Amino acid sequence: MDKVKDYIEVNKDRFISELFDLLRIPSISAQSEHRPDMQRCAEYLATALVKAGADRAEVMPTAGNPVVYAERIVDPKARTVLVYGHYDVMPVDPRDEWRTDPFEPVIRDGRIWGRGADDDKGQLWMHAKAFEAMCATDSLPCNVKFMLEGEEEIGSASLYDFCRANRKLLKADIILVSDTSMLSMQTPSITCGLRGLAYMEVEVTGPDKDLHSGLFGGAVANPANVLTRLVASLIDADGRVTIPGFYDDVRELTPAERRAFNRAPFSLAAYKRSLAIGDVEGEAGYTTLERTGVRPSLDVNGIWGGYTGEGTKTVIPSKASAKISMRLVPNQDFRKVSKLFERHFKAIAPKSVKVTVKSLHGGMPYVAPTDMPAYKAAERAVTEVFGKKPLPFYSGGSIPIISGFESILGIKSLLIGFGLAEDAIHSPNESYGLEQFERGLATIPLFYKYFAESR
Amino acid sequence: MDKVKDYIEVNKDRFISELFDLLRIPSISAQSEHRPDMQRCAEYLATALVKAGADRAEVMPTAGNPVVYAERIVDPKARTVLVYGHYDVMPVDPRDEWRTDPFEPVIRDGRIWGRGADDDKGQLWMHAKAFEAMCATDSLPCNVKFMLEGEEEIGSASLYDFCRANRKLLKADIILVSDTSMLSMQTPSITCGLRGLAYMEVEVTGPDKDLHSGLFGGAVANPANVLTRLVASLIDADGRVTIPGFYDDVRELTPAERRAFNRAPFSLAAYKRSLAIGDVEGEAGYTTLERTGVRPSLDVNGIWGGYTGEGTKTVIPSKASAKISMRLVPNQDFRKVSKLFERHFKAIAPKSVKVTVKSLHGGMPYVAPTDMPAYKAAERAVTEVFGKKPLPFYSGGSIPIISGFESILGIKSLLIGFGLAEDAIHSPNESYGLEQFERGLATIPLFYKYFAESR
Repeated sequence: MDKVKDYIEVNKDRFISELFDLLRIPSISAQSEHRPDMQRCAEYLATALVKAGADRAEVMPTAGNPVVYAERIVDPKARTVLVYGHYDVMPVDPRDEWRTDPFEPVIRDGRIWGRGADDDKGQLWMHAKAFEAMCATDSLPCNVKFMLEGEEEIGSASLYDFCRANRKLLKADIILVSDTSMLSMQTPSITCGLRGLAYMEVEVTGPDKDLHSGLFGGAVANPANVLTRLVASLIDADGRVTIPGFYDDVRELTPAERRAFNRAPFSLAAYKRSLAIGDVEGEAGYTTLERTGVRPSLDVNGIWGGYTGEGTKTVIPSKASAKISMRLVPNQDFRKVSKLFERHFKAIAPKSVKVTVKSLHGGMPYVAPTDMPAYKAAERAVTEVFGKKPLPFYSGGSIPIISGFESILGIKSLLIGFGLAEDAIHSPNESYGLEQFERGLATIPLFYKYFAESR
Repeated sequence: MDKVKDYIEVNKDRFISELFDLLRIPSISAQSEHRPDMQRCAEYLATALVKAGADRAEVMPTAGNPVVYAERIVDPKARTVLVYGHYDVMPVDPRDEWRTDPFEPVIRDGRIWGRGADDDKGQLWMHAKAFEAMCATDSLPCNVKFMLEGEEEIGSASLYDFCRANRKLLKADIILVSDTSMLSMQTPSITCGLRGLAYMEVEVTGPDKDLHSGLFGGAVANPANVLTRLVASLIDADGRVTIPGFYDDVRELTPAERRAFNRAPFSLAAYKRSLAIGDVEGEAGYTTLERTGVRPSLDVNGIWGGYTGEGTKTVIPSKASAKISMRLVPNQDFRKVSKLFERHFKAIAPKSVKVTVKSLHGGMPYVAPTDMPAYKAAERAVTEVFGKKPLPFYSGGSIPIISGFESILGIKSLLIGFGLAEDAIHSPNESYGLEQFERGLATIPLFYKYFAESR
């Protein structure tokens, strides 16, 4: 391992400067004008993986954005690790809240600032560079495959078909994923649960044109008022989702499980301070850790209607809309929940308006067993680098494709992410600590070693 | 009167082509980039009024957009009519719903299409051209003053000071205003009541940055969810505004007044059809006519927060906002109602968020007595042109400055508008019927004649 460490030490400045080139590509999958950037980003990665030591690398087309596939087979009898990551990033608005250009990364205060610095370019780059270090020092103990997609932030639609079409190519013992966070640098953790997601868009239409709010106000249902009423009614005073059947498939934790779960270090005061909020809010009867880890939720991700410009306009808008997503937990099914949402939202709409409900995307919740060899290998590697045994952690986030991998490829995923809450992924001023990057780089080769030995 | 009629008949095509030049100026007062257009529009009108026969016309600066003042004094002992109108127009978004360019007027199906075609350029132009016709034919029976402002759509802020500073200049027996609608061409009406307005903007702030809805969803108050809850709670299941004290000063109509009020011809089926709505919605216990005419209301004019672009973004927005306006009736005071709103909105906000409340503008309700000489003169003029006695009508709209005129100048206003509901003022595809324009042109000289005779 010393050779790998030395290689990393000598080359780490170059690793960062290459990462900066990757971060400069504005590969926002949600916005179609960035389509050419997706292709450019995929090509950059394929080239980089060959330079890093892959026997082959390909930019493979899909119905959407391409998938980068690369591999190095050291021994057909050795264990095979399939590294999954995504090169697409979230939109950057509100752009004026960024203190630096989201696509011109800089290092300040020991952190890399820019869109994708953590999620997921920074994290996948640790894998590319750990792979390079092991190849260059002739110490790669496993076969390695890379599968890097460009649609994770919009639901991985094309990757499902890609997996179905490439079952043999993707054969592996474990899928290795760094797209999650740790509790803190002092409390390392490995994610063993992810919430699922059902993402909806609703539109409420009243009159067939915008109306003057003086001439019609008080007599005609205002779609923006009605939207607030309908959306507000989706959560009751106890913070519970009111959609009939929503909780039917939620697995309730046993009292023992709840006690174990709440043992993770957590300070409510520090949590509130870090978010600058006066109080938390959520489902009655559950702790904050439980609310994000093992309970489902419903959030408005966007809402719009009427006049939102400077000054005033006395208008009753013809339409008002919202994007609403629900985080799901075992054993909720996003397809069932999406249907329940749609049925309920249409049922509660008054006759004075029309509503349309669209399902934009979804994914299943996921659980990784803590007794599988890959988990044990990761636990050992993290303990060695962080000086502390990692806690198994149920993340509130969703990576819908992870449960897809299990159902399509029959392969479990190991979620060993080096992010932190302060990285502000999906927000303005996303960043990734250099120390997180370096510890990730140090941990990954150890994982390969212990995973190879666990055969 | 025949000379006036003949003059109008000979010149009416030119009147329309001049109006088109006026409509081409995008004088949107709510958007500061149109500031130069306001000045240009004012200058166009001052020049036009001198050409029409004014002894003098001036573009008078204010703290905001200029006021156009013009006058022709025929006899210091004659009655004086002060014509009020506004040359500013509403914003045009959503622009893609316009079938024609909002600032390139066209005539189709007997109507003029464009922003301001009715409100208020089309209507004030009838006054300018009726004035020209009376001057040109030497048949102007009253002194005439014009006061045309550029801030009506944003609350007439500068005009209050202008009136205070020019009390003597503006001395008149009546203020003549065409900035309202008639019930229909078959049911002419004169507006004898206007609602007041209190226009607010609220902002709900949760965490100090946008958050990932997976990592935090369910545990942190989402400002967009909270906004829907707060706004929805402002109106109860009976359609009544829940702000404490809101109804305290509302004058309730007597049973006899309600019967008289509901005698205006009105078809609920036609109303719903014209708006393409399945049902009306409003305060329980009141008719649609009452809901817009004599009852206050509360409407969301705009709402925004979070991700509103293409596709999906799994974000808990840091902030969400709404523009909310209330229409007021006698004897509500917009200053008092604005304060009640602010106090209530802050009181109902949970500790998990911060809220700010701003008052953007306001105005008092107004009532014109139907027994004043100007009303009687207008009634006679309308009866002659429309072949039917006009109904007194309580409009749901607001012209805040009208009650200001009464309190500052001590002059009543006569609201003789020739608009129709189908003109879609404030909406995309605003229009004004050529017949409305021509009947207005025919009515105004008769009003001057009967008003002069009523001395």
